[in-house]
Amino acid sequence: MSVGLQELSYLKPVAGIRLSTAAANICYKDREDVVVIECCEGTSCAGVFTQNAFCAAPVIIARKHMSDAEPRAFIINSGNANAGTGNQGLQDAQQCCELVATELGCDAAQVLPFSTGVIGQNLPVDRIQAVIPLVASQLNDDAWNQAAQAIMTTDTMAKGKSLSLNLGGKDIAITGIAKGSGMIRPDMATLLSFIATDAAIDDELLQACLNSAVEKSFNRITVDGDTSTNDSCMLLATGRSGVNIQQGSEDYLQFEQAITEVCIYLAQSMIRDGEGATKFISVIVEQGKDCRECLDVAYTIAHSPLVKTAFFASDPNWGRILAAVGRSGLQGMVLEDISIYLDDTCIVENGGVAGSYTEAQGQAVMDKEEITIRVVLGRGQENECVWTTDLSYDYVKINAEYRT
Amino acid sequence: MSVGLQELSYLKPVAGIRLSTAAANICYKDREDVVVIECCEGTSCAGVFTQNAFCAAPVIIARKHMSDAEPRAFIINSGNANAGTGNQGLQDAQQCCELVATELGCDAAQVLPFSTGVIGQNLPVDRIQAVIPLVASQLNDDAWNQAAQAIMTTDTMAKGKSLSLNLGGKDIAITGIAKGSGMIRPDMATLLSFIATDAAIDDELLQACLNSAVEKSFNRITVDGDTSTNDSCMLLATGRSGVNIQQGSEDYLQFEQAITEVCIYLAQSMIRDGEGATKFISVIVEQGKDCRECLDVAYTIAHSPLVKTAFFASDPNWGRILAAVGRSGLQGMVLEDISIYLDDTCIVENGGVAGSYTEAQGQAVMDKEEITIRVVLGRGQENECVWTTDLSYDYVKINAEYRT
Repeated sequence: MSVGLQELSYLKPVAGIRLSTAAANICYKDREDVVVIECCEGTSCAGVFTQNAFCAAPVIIARKHMSDAEPRAFIINSGNANAGTGNQGLQDAQQCCELVATELGCDAAQVLPFSTGVIGQNLPVDRIQAVIPLVASQLNDDAWNQAAQAIMTTDTMAKGKSLSLNLGGKDIAITGIAKGSGMIRPDMATLLSFIATDAAIDDELLQACLNSAVEKSFNRITVDGDTSTNDSCMLLATGRSGVNIQQGSEDYLQFEQAITEVCIYLAQSMIRDGEGATKFISVIVEQGKDCRECLDVAYTIAHSPLVKTAFFASDPNWGRILAAVGRSGLQGMVLEDISIYLDDTCIVENGGVAGSYTEAQGQAVMDKEEITIRVVLGRGQENECVWTTDLSYDYVKINAEYRT
Repeated sequence: MSVGLQELSYLKPVAGIRLSTAAANICYKDREDVVVIECCEGTSCAGVFTQNAFCAAPVIIARKHMSDAEPRAFIINSGNANAGTGNQGLQDAQQCCELVATELGCDAAQVLPFSTGVIGQNLPVDRIQAVIPLVASQLNDDAWNQAAQAIMTTDTMAKGKSLSLNLGGKDIAITGIAKGSGMIRPDMATLLSFIATDAAIDDELLQACLNSAVEKSFNRITVDGDTSTNDSCMLLATGRSGVNIQQGSEDYLQFEQAITEVCIYLAQSMIRDGEGATKFISVIVEQGKDCRECLDVAYTIAHSPLVKTAFFASDPNWGRILAAVGRSGLQGMVLEDISIYLDDTCIVENGGVAGSYTEAQGQAVMDKEEITIRVVLGRGQENECVWTTDLSYDYVKINAEYRT
């Protein structure tokens, strides 16, 4: 199940991008699990990768290829992460690139590999190899929806978003897809997300744009505090719209805002589809001395199993929120200065339960599917927001049975 | 259920300590929930308290009274934590002390209050008041087992341990009790633990002994990463055995070792009775540059919901352990240097799955109730060990239904 997540709408083509999918039976049966995304010559490329010290083989190869050559294609598979696979994993990821390069007539270094799924099993390259010629022959500009389906693992719904933006009288297109519903946390972007636009923008500015957008979106969500070995978020700009975006321009600000909007939509979609999620919880921390301490408080709440199980039970057990704030490690924090709200209901002030608070008020908020926890620290001017889910039986079920 | 936790044995009296229990109907029905522990004049007292910034009213009062006067009694209740209760909470805790002091004929500052249970509800002092005269009249030296029962909250079994130690031809007694099975983590001692000995030892040395013992026991366990507002561990030394323990003596080393043994037993009991626990997991990290980084790796593993659900499923999904090590934040860590073992089975070496590893070997280990994860970092000489549990349906059930 998912919380307020809409069925995937039609995802619009982006001029200069062609895609195709196939079923290679890597892990799942009777569904597509391989995607190739091809971009035209001259496409700019930006990427944000996992901060996990043991990043997976495809991440190592993708980073290297991105710095060595101008990317022309991504090869993506679900069902197997090709992580914890040592030298064999690196060879397998490289071979996938070579297979695609041969079909597309480019260098292997112009192909970036991405994998998601079970860790620690060798990638069945032969099965991927068997479908690559088919995939290459079927590349077309109208397959974003199929791609969004094919990259799913524990996701219950495909995730994507299209936007168009009018800049100086011309429209540019932005389309993005993402997968991920567990093993997500802020140190890293997301599991996998691929976004493309037909704007023209140089690599460096595109990377700055992606960094900023990811910081406000994928780096503000957490399901379970775990960071994957494979997380990658890629942004391609083909230039085919003829709209040229320059640093410091008004157009750039609008472009960055639009990319951020797509990233926030995709990031929130992951939370709405978080493993076992029954609630969508926004944790807002206000009046901190700096953003860091706001985030420390927000993530301590968002990662607390006790807070998350109380939300699953729709139990206004605000004491657990209070205890989480208290152990978030802020120096010199004074209970009497803090107030805590569930939506608009004040639950804690002046060092204890709010005088106006009634259990019925708390229950009314907790019965909702989408809830905001707001903590006012009363010690500064900075604010932050993160998004998370509750912790349910189904979270345990999904993760206990993942490989069975 | 619990993992390998033995039924509470008979807990031996400690000369100079009298206890008594009663049922005040604070939260639970038909069970005892109030304990008074009285110590003789001249007893030394040491304590370790929660590091949570919002510590509960009884913790604030206990700390203050301990520094103001020589403690003569503890008043303990379960079912209500008297936390997040503001000024009223402080008044309530103080009133409990006064009620006990009146009955025992001492100053209120010589009574230390302790509470555990639901956060954010005012303590029903009237119900405690109603039983205090009875409790005071029934104080006796042989009620440690009843006290261990009365301080339980979500515990499924009472926890306690008695030891005797021969020093210079004379025996000293050590008896300790503890409660707690969730909301436990290393920043703090435990939920509640009370230990007494009839050795003679001054306050300062007793505190040093307790600090050392807690560091090796209660500060090495985690169930869910949450730190309570109420955690307290107290150690009393009545001196009634006539055995005098001096700083730097061989006796002191033996004494500290015995206290540590009791603390480790009690701490491990909490893990064995961890909320919803089906596994007892030791996480050993070896060959780190310093203890801090060993603990960072150990706790990242021990707190990972993905690792914990895999253990619940008895699934040798070692990739999740690898991913947890990778995100533990150690600078310059190299996958190729790391090896990981499940009990004696090597699962990861040379950057990938061990050549000798078979899924059957991993499954054989995972099918056991008690499992050791051993991570060899290969970058230094320090080792650390923490103890934790898996994450089961019942953890969610217990914490979702706690107040219902």
